Amino acid sequence: MSIRRPLSGPIGFNAQHSPMGAFMSFTCGNPGTKGGIGLQIGQPADQEVFIGLIDGDRYADATLKCLPFYVGAASNAAEAFMVEQAGPSEANVRPDAEPFAENEIKRSYGWATDSWEAGDLTFTVFSPFGPIPDPSKSSDRDMRDALRPAVVAQLIIDNTKGTKPKTGIFALNHSRPGPRMITDDLGGSARVGFAFRREAGVAAEVVDITGNGASDKPHAFGFMRWSATDGIREKFNPVHLLGSCPGIGFEVPAGKRYAMTLAIGSYLEAPVTTGLSGKYLYTRYYTDLTDVLRSTLDAAAKVIEKSDALDAKLEAATLSDDQKFLIAHATHSYYGSTQLLEIDKQPFWVVNEGEYCMMNTLDLSVDHVFWELDHNPWVVKNLLDNFVSHYSYTDKVKVYKDAGVSVHSFDHDPSQPPPPPDAAQLSRAYETAPGGISFCHDMGAHNNFAPKGRSSYELANLTSTFSYMTVEQLCNWTLTAACYLAKTRDTSWLKKNKKIVEEVLESFVNRGGEVGFAQFDSDKTAGGQEITTYDSLDHSLAQTRNNVYMAVKCWASYRALNLLFRDLGDKKAAQKAQELAEKVAGFVADQAVDGVLPAIFEKDNPGYNSRILPAVEGCVYPYYFAKTGYAGIKPEEVYASAAEKRMYDALKLHTEKLLLDPEKRSVFADGGIKLSSTSNNSWMSKISIFLDVTRRVFGLNANPAVAEVIKKADAAHVTWQAVGSAYWACCDQIVSGEGKASRYYPRIITSALWID
Amino acid sequence: MSIRRPLSGPIGFNAQHSPMGAFMSFTCGNPGTKGGIGLQIGQPADQEVFIGLIDGDRYADATLKCLPFYVGAASNAAEAFMVEQAGPSEANVRPDAEPFAENEIKRSYGWATDSWEAGDLTFTVFSPFGPIPDPSKSSDRDMRDALRPAVVAQLIIDNTKGTKPKTGIFALNHSRPGPRMITDDLGGSARVGFAFRREAGVAAEVVDITGNGASDKPHAFGFMRWSATDGIREKFNPVHLLGSCPGIGFEVPAGKRYAMTLAIGSYLEAPVTTGLSGKYLYTRYYTDLTDVLRSTLDAAAKVIEKSDALDAKLEAATLSDDQKFLIAHATHSYYGSTQLLEIDKQPFWVVNEGEYCMMNTLDLSVDHVFWELDHNPWVVKNLLDNFVSHYSYTDKVKVYKDAGVSVHSFDHDPSQPPPPPDAAQLSRAYETAPGGISFCHDMGAHNNFAPKGRSSYELANLTSTFSYMTVEQLCNWTLTAACYLAKTRDTSWLKKNKKIVEEVLESFVNRGGEVGFAQFDSDKTAGGQEITTYDSLDHSLAQTRNNVYMAVKCWASYRALNLLFRDLGDKKAAQKAQELAEKVAGFVADQAVDGVLPAIFEKDNPGYNSRILPAVEGCVYPYYFAKTGYAGIKPEEVYASAAEKRMYDALKLHTEKLLLDPEKRSVFADGGIKLSSTSNNSWMSKISIFLDVTRRVFGLNANPAVAEVIKKADAAHVTWQAVGSAYWACCDQIVSGEGKASRYYPRIITSALWID
Repeated sequence: MSIRRPLSGPIGFNAQHSPMGAFMSFTCGNPGTKGGIGLQIGQPADQEVFIGLIDGDRYADATLKCLPFYVGAASNAAEAFMVEQAGPSEANVRPDAEPFAENEIKRSYGWATDSWEAGDLTFTVFSPFGPIPDPSKSSDRDMRDALRPAVVAQLIIDNTKGTKPKTGIFALNHSRPGPRMITDDLGGSARVGFAFRREAGVAAEVVDITGNGASDKPHAFGFMRWSATDGIREKFNPVHLLGSCPGIGFEVPAGKRYAMTLAIGSYLEAPVTTGLSGKYLYTRYYTDLTDVLRSTLDAAAKVIEKSDALDAKLEAATLSDDQKFLIAHATHSYYGSTQLLEIDKQPFWVVNEGEYCMMNTLDLSVDHVFWELDHNPWVVKNLLDNFVSHYSYTDKVKVYKDAGVSVHSFDHDPSQPPPPPDAAQLSRAYETAPGGISFCHDMGAHNNFAPKGRSSYELANLTSTFSYMTVEQLCNWTLTAACYLAKTRDTSWLKKNKKIVEEVLESFVNRGGEVGFAQFDSDKTAGGQEITTYDSLDHSLAQTRNNVYMAVKCWASYRALNLLFRDLGDKKAAQKAQELAEKVAGFVADQAVDGVLPAIFEKDNPGYNSRILPAVEGCVYPYYFAKTGYAGIKPEEVYASAAEKRMYDALKLHTEKLLLDPEKRSVFADGGIKLSSTSNNSWMSKISIFLDVTRRVFGLNANPAVAEVIKKADAAHVTWQAVGSAYWACCDQIVSGEGKASRYYPRIITSALWID
Repeated sequence: MSIRRPLSGPIGFNAQHSPMGAFMSFTCGNPGTKGGIGLQIGQPADQEVFIGLIDGDRYADATLKCLPFYVGAASNAAEAFMVEQAGPSEANVRPDAEPFAENEIKRSYGWATDSWEAGDLTFTVFSPFGPIPDPSKSSDRDMRDALRPAVVAQLIIDNTKGTKPKTGIFALNHSRPGPRMITDDLGGSARVGFAFRREAGVAAEVVDITGNGASDKPHAFGFMRWSATDGIREKFNPVHLLGSCPGIGFEVPAGKRYAMTLAIGSYLEAPVTTGLSGKYLYTRYYTDLTDVLRSTLDAAAKVIEKSDALDAKLEAATLSDDQKFLIAHATHSYYGSTQLLEIDKQPFWVVNEGEYCMMNTLDLSVDHVFWELDHNPWVVKNLLDNFVSHYSYTDKVKVYKDAGVSVHSFDHDPSQPPPPPDAAQLSRAYETAPGGISFCHDMGAHNNFAPKGRSSYELANLTSTFSYMTVEQLCNWTLTAACYLAKTRDTSWLKKNKKIVEEVLESFVNRGGEVGFAQFDSDKTAGGQEITTYDSLDHSLAQTRNNVYMAVKCWASYRALNLLFRDLGDKKAAQKAQELAEKVAGFVADQAVDGVLPAIFEKDNPGYNSRILPAVEGCVYPYYFAKTGYAGIKPEEVYASAAEKRMYDALKLHTEKLLLDPEKRSVFADGGIKLSSTSNNSWMSKISIFLDVTRRVFGLNANPAVAEVIKKADAAHVTWQAVGSAYWACCDQIVSGEGKASRYYPRIITSALWID
């Protein structure tokens, strides 16, 4: 049974309600804006969502009260047909619905549910998730269940205390032309549905849940006019095939409580991607939209049960309400970006990058890996293989002929990202030295796969946004591979990739110079420099070279390589990797000044005076290798060597000092975590990893002062999402509390690390 | 060779450039708005179109001067990635193009071309048309040629007098995400292309047309950034896969004249319709978008030649420039609405209804029939058959128990359409009597086929817009069938449809009452009344019953049935049809008062005092039966019987009197034709038929006063289109000179009647 508890904080925010792998969201929640069913887009869709009730039968002269998920202006599509026509015909169109006020609404937000109560109405969306089975090993029935491109919703109208009928409705007013009523059999005459062309639709049936025995025969009715009210009330022609606003309604007699179950689904049958031609894997298991909707209604009870079980699981976790909220919100948006394709008859897993729709951005993938491995490790293998076969490249590194730091003009505001490269930077002389393998930032964007060996994002001759992330992505593939091994012990996969792993180590070595990590830029950057995933942050996290974040991540990568070579039986390489890990760790430890680490280890660099919390991010991986038993040691033994112990102590002290900084340079005014002391950009997904390391690796939560900082931060982070990014659902990149970029984003799923 | 002459009138209007049957338009021409490639939509698409040149090489610090087919604001898509970033990076983005002023541009507009000259640039779009062969009888090669879902364009840069290079470009800045560069082979390395996902794209190659011998090797280059200028000038990364504005450019050395040939095409591979599942027939003949673009470039020379020949043909017609303009404009928009599908492995012809996208609206089809029969009669048969098998129905007629006229309250402004039915109308008692077969208004809308026997448009219980058009559509199917026979003499088709033709006559008789035409409303209207195709006009053309327009159209239908029964060898039915024709003609003639015919033959009806020019519309059909030789008589012999001669005289006098009305109630202030003396609504397609009947059937052009009225009207009609409907390309429904509805419309193709 449901354990739903109303939110005590803000309730007016959008949530994505998504099946797995269908790149589909049913989005609603933010008052006064459009949403509804969106396919293959990085933002809320373009329908007005009417969910409401009339205190009377469908024709009653009573207001349609609705949840506030619509712009509110009456549709004027009818006017297009009625030129030079004054008042009379307009008289037919009643004013649109009246929204429930925010204080009349209670909202509960669970891991797999989202529920609103207002007046005698309860509307809940169910979007359960779970393992996607490996298609090569699973029955069609199991795949159908897992890949059903639909969510379930339920509209309950309680008229047990009423003395006359009430009427419930669900309608979507479309901006684009093409809605229609479904005339195919949805599994019995009591079911009613509507669709948008061939691609998306809603089907419904109504049941009596009064629980007092004798049931009449509840039934749903369809309508489609140019507004919800016009449709529901129209006596003669409730369905006009030219209408923009299809919907489904039902009347509830006095004394009754009815539930309308809704299947909200999609079906795209044709290949949808270019470059690599892919169609949705669900097309293997479903014949068309009607099949999707029919089977979703058939399975609705199971879907609801599964959702409630997931809600209960999160509720049972030893986390604060704020933390649970963030995890639930992250999970909702995560699945909205997922896209399981079939390419060359093989499954091909894609997570789209939120509003940007870049495909399998590798610096997101590495963050998603913990979640994926908990649910469906085969998609991680799929991803690793696809990067190797399609999106890897070999470069050289640049060895500048002048001094070791860039000649960038450093006289600008350090809180701003680096300026575009100037002529001096572009013409700076360098020689090349061997580089090695690395991986592309992404596989393409907006369903267009990039050409082989190329990302949609990376460009030459830049020093910040859109430059190459060669070392960062080398770390990311390595860490993803090691996590995959840690979880699955799939050494047969590892052995097939022996050569790649060897190339990876060589590539790290070639890039690491004297100190062992990220000393050179890829020649792919031409006159530019490599950047990190924090692409629009300031100097503290922009450049790769001599960056503390990169250093610790490289250290983690060497720990990862040590384990991979161990399993490959290559003791020498394993040993070398461990030596490099210790070398880098020692180097990092040596950089500490007054208990904190500079962001950039270059004294002339403006980033030298920045303090960044993501310094510790890399620690999450060796912890995972230990925790999963893969490393064969306890988590604290990760730091057994002298150098690594020194780095551990330095990072821990760094973290503690920053969190407790009396000047509060690492928190925002609202208490939220500020990743860099010199930038107002913060990424919620990265904060989540940082907090996990802080609590679990360093145990800093034991310090009540730190715990208090984190508690305040959690609360601020909820406000960032539910208020600062209310329209954009889950948002990653926050500027001073407002969701400014990386919106509608999957990566905050890193918050799920907090659960176990 | 081209016979292009610059337009002397307004040049700032959109034109649709469309292949046949692909429901695709490349639209441009209206300054300051978006256009580009639109698929399956009833309006201009959403791209900014940049066609221009730089006086210098691509990197030159000179303004990009463009034709004014863009909104003008620089794209800000890049900003999404660059949060909290001030001036520096913006410095990279140059201001966008500068448009040529209207007085710097010359535009020529031919039957199959559209051409702009500005500075050293000439841009021409070629959209030839011709017979679509019957797929069951034609080679794949011929079908590929006819159904190529693409148009050709050519950008010529003349640098013969220059002393440094010039650069030409063509780029489309997209509103929706998903553009990409084409990496497939387009037929040689000199060809470059870009696309929007899988569905639309542009490919190009450049040739030296200087004609002075020695040619270097001209080549095109691709680019894609966030604006046209940014893309063309970017040295390091001209292609960013995240860009919104793909384009193609070429440099022209001093002394040279280069032409870039462009293939602008589309390809939708999946089924696109619901209800009846149809995909584009061109998918039989083309494998994908690349195939379309490659073969279009291969065939470009032929396409250009064919277009020029069509231009020359229209130019040679004995018509005024205004008339030629209207025909050319109508033809451009006509093909933009055409959609040749494959359903159940059979071709299925659809003409979409302009901005409304209703499919095969029968009251449009009947107007398109002359054009179709001139080009591809088999699509008319296809349409007739599809109406019979999917979109016909059988009704009863209503016989009111009270008096013969409706009880509508007649006290409102007669220039306004009838009000919605009041309670008295809705509850007006009637008995039913046998009705018979008729045909639906349309087959669905926006790619959603309506359920069998039902249109998307018609609804019950209405008295104006959206009511049933039962008698009108019965006429329309009959007249279309007879025109088909007239042109093809396909008696084997007729014999297969003998039963239908018999049912049609019976249906006419049942609806005709004492006087023989349209005395009863269909019981499909329930409490409403039938309307005519002039659905948003006033009382003068709203109701079907006792309407002079319907009377004459019914007369024409009886003439049609007479010929059909003649060919079926049913002398008795043929005779009966002719008797009815004469009966109706006599009745019409008897209604004349003071030399004009009332619009509605009911003295209590406000339409009684209206005067309508479409009274004569029906005369076009018997004229066609005679002219094609089908009737076996000369056109003037159509009016051989006494009653028909009387009607002819009445209609001719009616027309002459209205056109020369000293109060000018049948022309607008600008001289354009006003179809009803009491309404400001006018339809250009219907004016075109009216003018054809006026000139050809009545020979009224011989009257210099009438000729002068028509000449002035032609000029006004050009302004209606080129100014009053500048954004919406060809527009049918005009309110006082402004294109207000039925925009982006196919039906004005009736103007092609003027040619022969």
